Amino acid sequence: MSEAKPESSTPDYPEQFAGIRNKIERRLTEIAPSVSGTAPRLKRSIRYSLLDGGKRLRPLITVLTTEALGGRAADAIDAACAIEMVHSASLVIDDLPCMDDATQRRGKPANHIAHGEDIAILGAISLISDAFGLIARDRHLPPDVKADLVSSLSKAIGVDGLCAGQERDLRDITEHSDAESLAQLQYQKTGALFVACLEAGARIAGLPQDSLAPLQAFGTHMGLAFQILDDLLDAVGQSAATGKDHRADLGKQTYAAIMSLDEAEAQASRELSCALEALEPAGINQAPFAAFLNLVLAAYQVQVDFGQVRQARARV
Amino acid sequence: MSEAKPESSTPDYPEQFAGIRNKIERRLTEIAPSVSGTAPRLKRSIRYSLLDGGKRLRPLITVLTTEALGGRAADAIDAACAIEMVHSASLVIDDLPCMDDATQRRGKPANHIAHGEDIAILGAISLISDAFGLIARDRHLPPDVKADLVSSLSKAIGVDGLCAGQERDLRDITEHSDAESLAQLQYQKTGALFVACLEAGARIAGLPQDSLAPLQAFGTHMGLAFQILDDLLDAVGQSAATGKDHRADLGKQTYAAIMSLDEAEAQASRELSCALEALEPAGINQAPFAAFLNLVLAAYQVQVDFGQVRQARARV
Repeated sequence: MSEAKPESSTPDYPEQFAGIRNKIERRLTEIAPSVSGTAPRLKRSIRYSLLDGGKRLRPLITVLTTEALGGRAADAIDAACAIEMVHSASLVIDDLPCMDDATQRRGKPANHIAHGEDIAILGAISLISDAFGLIARDRHLPPDVKADLVSSLSKAIGVDGLCAGQERDLRDITEHSDAESLAQLQYQKTGALFVACLEAGARIAGLPQDSLAPLQAFGTHMGLAFQILDDLLDAVGQSAATGKDHRADLGKQTYAAIMSLDEAEAQASRELSCALEALEPAGINQAPFAAFLNLVLAAYQVQVDFGQVRQARARV
Repeated sequence: MSEAKPESSTPDYPEQFAGIRNKIERRLTEIAPSVSGTAPRLKRSIRYSLLDGGKRLRPLITVLTTEALGGRAADAIDAACAIEMVHSASLVIDDLPCMDDATQRRGKPANHIAHGEDIAILGAISLISDAFGLIARDRHLPPDVKADLVSSLSKAIGVDGLCAGQERDLRDITEHSDAESLAQLQYQKTGALFVACLEAGARIAGLPQDSLAPLQAFGTHMGLAFQILDDLLDAVGQSAATGKDHRADLGKQTYAAIMSLDEAEAQASRELSCALEALEPAGINQAPFAAFLNLVLAAYQVQVDFGQVRQARARV
C-alpha cells in the first residue's frame, strides 16, 4: 500500500489550467472541419489558423470562470471554443495585406501567405459564423443562455467591438492619442472579447444576466493590461520570441507611443490590480483569477525582460 | 358615404409584398448603425451596403413564409433583416479585388471602391456578426427558436454554405463542370441562404424543426432557378440593367457555360415547378409562394428579354 499524501488545501492551478487546455485542444480538433468533400482549400485555411498552438487564453478564462463560479467545465467547453474561433479569425483578418500586412503569425506564414488572400478571408468568415452555430447547437446549455452568449459574442465583434477597434487601429493614427481614447480603442481591440469570455463563463455557471458587472470589469481591466504588455513587446520587437512581424505597430496609437516604458509598466500593473479588486464586492474568490493573471504574466516575462526592453528602447 | 367595394376573394399579393418590403426597409434603417461615436468609416460602409435599395427577396420570402403558415409578420421582421444583413455582407465580400474584383454593385461603386478594402471587409464581418446578435436579442421569439435560427443561418454561411460556394466559384474553374457538381455549388452560393429564409419563416410560424423538409426543398429549387437566371443575365451582360460589372463570370462554372440558353431556360423552369410541387404533400398553400416566384421572374424579364439574349449570345 502506498503512503497517503497529505492533501493540499489550495488548488493546483497550473494542473487545473493544463487540464482545461487539453480539453479545449481536443474539442477544437473535433470541431475543425475535416478536409474532405467540397471546398478543401477553405477547410485547410480554417485548420491552419485554428489548430496552430495559440495560447488559448480566451477559452481558458471562459472555462475557468465557469468552474470558479461553481459550474461544470464540460458545459463551457464549446462556448469557449467558439470564442477561440472568433479570436483566430480576428488574427487572420488583422494580418491581411489591406490591414496590418503581416507576413508571420505564431512563427509561421500568415494565413493569406499560405492559402491566398481570398481563402484567408473566407476562412475567417467561416470561423466567425461557425462559432455562432457551435453555441446555438450546444447540447449542454439551455436556449436562453445560448441566446445571451450569441448576443454577447456578437457585441464583441461588431461596430463596438473587434471591427471597430481594427478600423480605428488602421485609420485613427494621428487623431486621438490621449490615454482615454486609447483605452477605449484597446477595449474594442482586446477587452470586448475578454469580457465576452467572462460573461459566457458566468452565464454558463448560472449567474443571471444582471449580475455580470464585476466580471465585465475584470475582463475590461485585464484586456487593457494585456494590450499594454503587447504594445511593449511589439515596440522592442523580437520576431523569434513573438512569432509576429517586428515593430508592426510603428506609427500606430499604442501605449509605447504615448508614455514611457516605466509608465506603461506601472499602468499595466494598476489595471491588473483593478481587475482583481472588481471581483471583491461580489464575493467572488479571486484566487483562480489571480492564478490566471500570473500564468499570462509569466508567459510575457519569458519573452520580455523589462531590463532588456529598456536597453533596446534606448538604442532605437 | 362612399360606395362599398366588393371584397376580393383572393389575396392581393403585390400589395402584401409591398407592405412587407416597407416594414423591412423601415426596420433596416433602424438597425443600421448611426454614424456617430467611434469607427464612423466602418458604420458608413455598413450603411452603404445595407441601405442601398436591394430587391430584399430574402427577407420578403422569410416574412411571407411566416404569414403563409399562419404566423405574424411582426415576429419575422428582425430575423428577415438579419438574413438580409448576411446577404449584403456576402456581396461586399464577393466584390473584393482578391475575389471577383468587381467595381460596381447595384449601380454604384462597390463597397471597397467607395470605402477602401479594409473597411469593406470589416463592414461585412460586422454585418454578419450583428445579424446573429439581432436574432439573439429578438423580443418576439422564444429562445429555442432563436437558437434554431442562429444554427440555420450559420450553416448557410460557413464551410457548407456561402463561403464554400465562393471558394469553389473562385478556385474550381476547370475541375467540376457537370450539372450535378454545378447544382451543389449553386446550392452553396445561393440555395443555402434561401433555405435559411424558409426555415426561419417556418420556425417563427411555429412549425417544429423536423417538419421543415418541404420548405427546404422549395428553397433549394428556387435558389437553383434564380442562379440559372443570374448566370444567363451575366452571360449576355447589361451593366446598366443589372448594376453589376458585365460578363464578370466569364471562365467560371456557370449554367451558361455548360448548356445552351434554351436548355438553361428549360432547367430554370423545371426548378421552379419542382419548388412549388415540394410544398404539395405538406398541404401548404402554394399561392403566396407562386406569387413570389412570379414577382421575381417579372423582375428578370424586365432585364432579360430571352429573344434578345439569344441574339446577343449569337454575336459573342
